[in-house]
Amino acid sequence: MSKETIPYKIYLEESEMPKQWYNVRADMKKKPSPLLNPGTGQPCTAEELSHVFCDELVKQELNETDPYIDIPSEILSFYKMYRPSPLVRAYCLEKKLGTPAKIYYKFEGNNTSGSHKLNSAIAQAYYAKKQGLKGVTTETGAGQWGTALSMACSYFDLDCKVYMVKVSYEQKPFRREVMRTYGASVTPSPSMTTEVGRKILAEFPDTNGSLGCAISEAVEAATTHEGYRYVLGSVLSQVLLHQSVIGLETKIALDKYGIKPDIIIGCAGGGSNLGGLISPFMGEKLRGEADYRIIAVEPASCPSFTRGTYAYDFCDTGKVCPLQKMYTLGSGFMPSPNHAGGLRYHGMSAVLSELYDQGLMEARSVEQTAVFEAAEQFARVEGILPAPESSHAIRAAIDEAIKCRETGEEKTIVFGLTGTGYFDMYAYAAYNDGKMSDYIPTDEEIAKSIAQLPKIG
Amino acid sequence: MSKETIPYKIYLEESEMPKQWYNVRADMKKKPSPLLNPGTGQPCTAEELSHVFCDELVKQELNETDPYIDIPSEILSFYKMYRPSPLVRAYCLEKKLGTPAKIYYKFEGNNTSGSHKLNSAIAQAYYAKKQGLKGVTTETGAGQWGTALSMACSYFDLDCKVYMVKVSYEQKPFRREVMRTYGASVTPSPSMTTEVGRKILAEFPDTNGSLGCAISEAVEAATTHEGYRYVLGSVLSQVLLHQSVIGLETKIALDKYGIKPDIIIGCAGGGSNLGGLISPFMGEKLRGEADYRIIAVEPASCPSFTRGTYAYDFCDTGKVCPLQKMYTLGSGFMPSPNHAGGLRYHGMSAVLSELYDQGLMEARSVEQTAVFEAAEQFARVEGILPAPESSHAIRAAIDEAIKCRETGEEKTIVFGLTGTGYFDMYAYAAYNDGKMSDYIPTDEEIAKSIAQLPKIG
Repeated sequence: MSKETIPYKIYLEESEMPKQWYNVRADMKKKPSPLLNPGTGQPCTAEELSHVFCDELVKQELNETDPYIDIPSEILSFYKMYRPSPLVRAYCLEKKLGTPAKIYYKFEGNNTSGSHKLNSAIAQAYYAKKQGLKGVTTETGAGQWGTALSMACSYFDLDCKVYMVKVSYEQKPFRREVMRTYGASVTPSPSMTTEVGRKILAEFPDTNGSLGCAISEAVEAATTHEGYRYVLGSVLSQVLLHQSVIGLETKIALDKYGIKPDIIIGCAGGGSNLGGLISPFMGEKLRGEADYRIIAVEPASCPSFTRGTYAYDFCDTGKVCPLQKMYTLGSGFMPSPNHAGGLRYHGMSAVLSELYDQGLMEARSVEQTAVFEAAEQFARVEGILPAPESSHAIRAAIDEAIKCRETGEEKTIVFGLTGTGYFDMYAYAAYNDGKMSDYIPTDEEIAKSIAQLPKIG
Repeated sequence: MSKETIPYKIYLEESEMPKQWYNVRADMKKKPSPLLNPGTGQPCTAEELSHVFCDELVKQELNETDPYIDIPSEILSFYKMYRPSPLVRAYCLEKKLGTPAKIYYKFEGNNTSGSHKLNSAIAQAYYAKKQGLKGVTTETGAGQWGTALSMACSYFDLDCKVYMVKVSYEQKPFRREVMRTYGASVTPSPSMTTEVGRKILAEFPDTNGSLGCAISEAVEAATTHEGYRYVLGSVLSQVLLHQSVIGLETKIALDKYGIKPDIIIGCAGGGSNLGGLISPFMGEKLRGEADYRIIAVEPASCPSFTRGTYAYDFCDTGKVCPLQKMYTLGSGFMPSPNHAGGLRYHGMSAVLSELYDQGLMEARSVEQTAVFEAAEQFARVEGILPAPESSHAIRAAIDEAIKCRETGEEKTIVFGLTGTGYFDMYAYAAYNDGKMSDYIPTDEEIAKSIAQLPKIG
């Protein structure tokens, strides 16, 4: 079709929506390294994992061979409530930048959780319900994942216990109230409700909490309560599987209009959005059918791809979870408190880590004032106030579009706009008041944290 | 088409989107009464109004004859950034209620302003820019209108001065920051920056402010600054004209699937959403082509339709604006501070007031705990956290659907879901904590306020 026929927003018809998730591991010749039992150092068995995760999700976690997995009809029905998400042509941003580049973004923020996290939350809640569980436990940092899981559990009438990083619990009371409105119980972490929480509080009574610590508490709560399992919003391969719906919809929409992207950009914390967005494109790349530049964008204050090391590490501070081989800054790494958004996880999805290690994608880090500059510019012309996390991708997309302006190249850029920033206004206020600063960890800080990695693998 | 082919969400194609607004006054045999000059008691002339409003908007305000007015292409382009809004079939809510009714809602919350207000904000900003103005002034209460106007002004590079009701300014710092991110200046009202503000502060130094007072300040600021005009987000006939895009899209979507609504429901504060949603349906009703039950839903704490009187009144506390004939509780009426949402305006659109007076629509009032019960129920099954304002319409829609369950009637109900509640979490927190109460003004309170009406008309 001609350029003129491309609408501002491409919405798929319900009949065009994906009916299967895509499992990129099936097309990887060299697979990600297996999860290891921290006690034995041996690959985790399905039986071991099933104490922590739902049975069906364990199968998905370990499934490296099936390229397509049917999306159950109950999940498809839920997806229809807020999906398809629009693929938006950023005509106004292009004009503002004066670039010949064509910029598209897949916008996942049009749901109450405010982000793409709902795509996996509903799947994980569904499998928990199907297994006859009473409820699930999880952690949340910025609160997007906790909100998404609360919504999903409310829909399937499951109990939902959320451990919310203490500093977020206090700074984001509105996020907490959204979760409560959806019937979740929200506990600031570290808390006195778990062994690991009590231990951390004894050692660091004034701690603000961390994601790694909240994970430990949620896992403990799941394994010590009858009828509960733990669920996680990123990092795991099952989460990337569910999030492939983002990339699949994007690809169907692009194909419908005969558009072939040159560059695909996503922000990367644990990797759920990036992994989901790129998966079908990476599949083509792995099968030698097409080539794309794929760029992961991470914060300069928590640079696991660009300054971390590829090694086995703990997924959580409490060291109760399986070990995963990944790009990591060390499970003891703490991003500076001045870092605003999410994307503060010390590690990275095993799938993405392996793909990055094989040279199939690039990574870059960006500083936060530059990220908020991009966010403001985007908000003012595209009418969407982006989440700080998503704004990392906006920064890189703008930078690439500016390069096109300089070279005259009409590249097609697709980026993931994972969510909205309505619950991140403290960070925007700091930026508006000129009080936002940048922080880049020193080589010594990173080396010190990496020196603590477990001696395995 | 058969029932099975109706998707969860109906999105129009860009080519199906309305290219003209619909002016319901053209089809009214008895027109709304004219705005009066408070000094002379005579109908305001275009020349008088042009000191306050942009010239083109004055024309629209006074235009009672043209049924259709072209939407300028610049506004159509902006509409494409966030419109069409989806018409959603509430399959999950129907199931939860066990009702044979078919429920649809037109969802206007998928934009950063979080509500339908953007539809008129962009139009008013456009005409201000076209007239070569430097900027515009306005008031905002809950903050939806101020946010919408900030976005619109940012898009057209216009200065935007927002007077924000003091209590909201303090309780909704996030709303304030969104406006600042879009480049607006936000002043808590009453302020020392205007004559009327200083006067009110001298008399009531501890006042929390009110919408009527913020309007007075914004009007004064517009008329005392060179190159500025005042813009208003509701009540005015021009605003209902712009908001007709909601009803037109709704009607096109329903017609496409051969659906004829029996009942159309909207919340009513100043009337912008309700007036916009119902306009094409009311047009058919006025022309004798179809019949619909149309229900305005207002808060029991600010019941202008159901307990007010139809008379000329001041639109603002400072009494600087033209007089309008409307259903009113008196410009001195103050809703109880325990009232959570917007919808706190003492009066009502002149167009809707006249239609209501002619018996062409119904009105009912609902109490706020019942409204939040409906909001929670809706959020949990439909996945959207609604604004308190919108939840008034949800309450009435659920009540009508429950009646259908009792009678077995398969009625088709359409309601306006004007926005999201992300910036209203204090109210949700009060509800979650069981601390929300209801307040209904006494007959004496209302009589006392109405006794102060000007002796005109």
